[in-house]
Amino acid sequence: MKLKNAALCAMAAVGLSFSAQAQNTDSLMLRKIFDETLVNGQCYENLRYLCKKIGSRLSGSAGAAKSVEWSKKLMESYGFDKIYLQEVMVPHWVRGEKEQGIIVSGTTRTPVALAALGMSVGTPKAGITAEVIELQSLKELETLGEAKIKGKIIFFNRPFDNRFIETGGAYGTAGDQRNAGPGMAAKYGAVAVIVRSLTAALDNYPHTGGTNYGTNPQIPAAAISTIAANKLSAMLKQKSAAPIKFFLKTSCQMLPDVLSYNVVGEIKGSENNNKYITVGGHLDSWDLAEGAHDDGTGVMQSVEVLRVFKALGYKPKNNIRAVFFMNEENGHKGGIKYAEQAKADKEEHIAAIETDEGGFTPRGFSFERATPVFLKGINQEWKKLFEPYEADRLVAGGGGTDIGPLRETHPNIKLIGFRPDSQRYFDIHHTPNDVFENVNKRELELGAASIASLIYLIDQHGLNF
Amino acid sequence: MKLKNAALCAMAAVGLSFSAQAQNTDSLMLRKIFDETLVNGQCYENLRYLCKKIGSRLSGSAGAAKSVEWSKKLMESYGFDKIYLQEVMVPHWVRGEKEQGIIVSGTTRTPVALAALGMSVGTPKAGITAEVIELQSLKELETLGEAKIKGKIIFFNRPFDNRFIETGGAYGTAGDQRNAGPGMAAKYGAVAVIVRSLTAALDNYPHTGGTNYGTNPQIPAAAISTIAANKLSAMLKQKSAAPIKFFLKTSCQMLPDVLSYNVVGEIKGSENNNKYITVGGHLDSWDLAEGAHDDGTGVMQSVEVLRVFKALGYKPKNNIRAVFFMNEENGHKGGIKYAEQAKADKEEHIAAIETDEGGFTPRGFSFERATPVFLKGINQEWKKLFEPYEADRLVAGGGGTDIGPLRETHPNIKLIGFRPDSQRYFDIHHTPNDVFENVNKRELELGAASIASLIYLIDQHGLNF
Repeated sequence: MKLKNAALCAMAAVGLSFSAQAQNTDSLMLRKIFDETLVNGQCYENLRYLCKKIGSRLSGSAGAAKSVEWSKKLMESYGFDKIYLQEVMVPHWVRGEKEQGIIVSGTTRTPVALAALGMSVGTPKAGITAEVIELQSLKELETLGEAKIKGKIIFFNRPFDNRFIETGGAYGTAGDQRNAGPGMAAKYGAVAVIVRSLTAALDNYPHTGGTNYGTNPQIPAAAISTIAANKLSAMLKQKSAAPIKFFLKTSCQMLPDVLSYNVVGEIKGSENNNKYITVGGHLDSWDLAEGAHDDGTGVMQSVEVLRVFKALGYKPKNNIRAVFFMNEENGHKGGIKYAEQAKADKEEHIAAIETDEGGFTPRGFSFERATPVFLKGINQEWKKLFEPYEADRLVAGGGGTDIGPLRETHPNIKLIGFRPDSQRYFDIHHTPNDVFENVNKRELELGAASIASLIYLIDQHGLNF
Repeated sequence: MKLKNAALCAMAAVGLSFSAQAQNTDSLMLRKIFDETLVNGQCYENLRYLCKKIGSRLSGSAGAAKSVEWSKKLMESYGFDKIYLQEVMVPHWVRGEKEQGIIVSGTTRTPVALAALGMSVGTPKAGITAEVIELQSLKELETLGEAKIKGKIIFFNRPFDNRFIETGGAYGTAGDQRNAGPGMAAKYGAVAVIVRSLTAALDNYPHTGGTNYGTNPQIPAAAISTIAANKLSAMLKQKSAAPIKFFLKTSCQMLPDVLSYNVVGEIKGSENNNKYITVGGHLDSWDLAEGAHDDGTGVMQSVEVLRVFKALGYKPKNNIRAVFFMNEENGHKGGIKYAEQAKADKEEHIAAIETDEGGFTPRGFSFERATPVFLKGINQEWKKLFEPYEADRLVAGGGGTDIGPLRETHPNIKLIGFRPDSQRYFDIHHTPNDVFENVNKRELELGAASIASLIYLIDQHGLNF
């Protein structure tokens, strides 16, 4: 071996040994985090309480108020350094009586599973009956035009595209039907909108979720189950003497805004007084179930991160904050307030991690505004640390709705989304099936430990890849 | 740039382009396999039939016979090139009447959830009542010795070690209590054995499963639920006037061996007449439920692989065989027979892939006798092909029970285990909860597509890394 090569090798060896030492300290800490969470984890029992003793907690509801109060007490029981409520005005939408949906074919009336979309207006007391037009996309509204749409009920029926491997892709591409569909159809004179539930599952649950009329007229809008959607579509395809009509009756309405709160807990940083790493999920949930995976799991994982650090005696360099955001589902006022306050208080934010994709087996994390250099660096340095826990997919992608407003207020922040396995999420998302029983204890804990691990690494080394 | 470097770069570019082309053909084919499975997949509906119309199918049972007949017809309906039954004699153990288990503390009798272990002998008709000794390991039998054990009921209560990330590790290390525990305890004069159910879940289901007395005396043996185990353990720790006793009554027994079958379907190879790639799971299942994840999902994925190849018009070079093995649960006679027949017929076997860890989201594959060179090679060449499907963990590890006997008969074969996410498997494993409703359609299909993809790659390129 030539001298130059030998020198290079020696230098490489020094580099390797230094890096290996850091890796070793880190990998030992990750093992401790996982052991603590898997052996002494409390997020599962906390989630049980939230789901079973409090239940649904849509913004403005009694459940939401109760959940705020309990969450603060929970954080206090852990003795974090600072615990407080952050005031935020939130919209107050109420579903009212159980909705009715009926396919009307001549004298045959077929009731179907239906749920009003969040933020939608109710029907007149007698309900609405009108002829149905099935569409697959919003573009078809334009093609048909006002002449054909006026006075009709528009039925958006484009199913999930099952070719997406992560189900969020299918949700994202089908979602315009629920989000913008009602407002757009109203613009063309439709009297109501029914939407195929946003799920790949074929079942009888209507999946609620928010709609946004924007500046368009407001007409009643509801989701029907995928089984109901298939039935209605089949009936529309049959030739029948009379056109197929649909009857829906909803009594939902908007009430005045209500004072509510983000719940915040902190462990103080030992080195950097004014630097923050945030982990959070949202405390509010739709009214049809217990908000278990959406997003009870996320808030309980967030507080578990702080609990684990305390249990291990870990003293972070930076302030670590768990935030239970209010109002993600229908307004994300909590996320907006958090960012505004952080800016007003001149806080420096290193990173924010959102967990709002369910409490399933962790697969990794997605990083917003991730350059190829960043992705290469973080994968080179940290991927192997997560490999033993099978949570090592470090990819480009979104952070989340609640932390999103920090993008504007804190341009240097790194926004990160926790990415659990996505296959089951939209089976239960926004349905009566989003209950505690559908959460697996170990999956939930593995997620909490993965998030704690990432926060530990960011706290120790920063994110300058 | 110097000439030499330029030449090297040009060579590298040629290599890259050749390799990229192969990668591109392969990645396009994998995309087709996943699309076909996710859009037109039939494994979920086939599984529904197996679970709901046939149900449990323990070796020797009427359900097993019915499942063999239906499986053959299913393969025939797909028009594979060759479909046949492979005769195999199997043990015939029957559970008999519903078992009874009661904790007896003075005059207080507390019934608990209990299920006899497979292959265990029944109690006398009046049942057995005896004092209970709780142990955490088989080693403690030796420490206590015959004097203290004789006439007692041994209660093995070592829980799952939750620090294992993959739950198979916890199952493996706790499993000796169920497998060897009863026989070992009998050697020291115990009159019966009860075992804490092999699961991390805290619930009221007893988990059955086979025990193996070996050459030891045969005494009644049963599993109790984890809730029951915790209760019994707590009562044993309390000081009470009279010692805690346990009553169990089981009426299980061994009947004479029965003729049964492996069910085999083949697509003929276009190039290699006598070379085989096998994919299989086991058709038999425990008697307490529907054998959904264990292993209805495995057999239905196996036949789906062949269906997908046919649907895509893929003509494999080698013979591709789907095998529904009989008797994995209590004897693995089907696996032994398959290997013996393959040897007798002088078949050349390239690889066998077993899917018997549940129909959960695929994570990757484990390879037996995988050298570091092999692992490096396969990860370098194929990992990136599986990355878009998040099934890219290609690791060293076991193949499976059914394909295991091929290790001896075909020393050049590569034995491969399909590795789905492991978190939920032991919650339902061998319990009344192993039903169709606990299988997710997309998770099942993603697994089938992953396996088909690996078989395609092996068929095209072999496994010479």
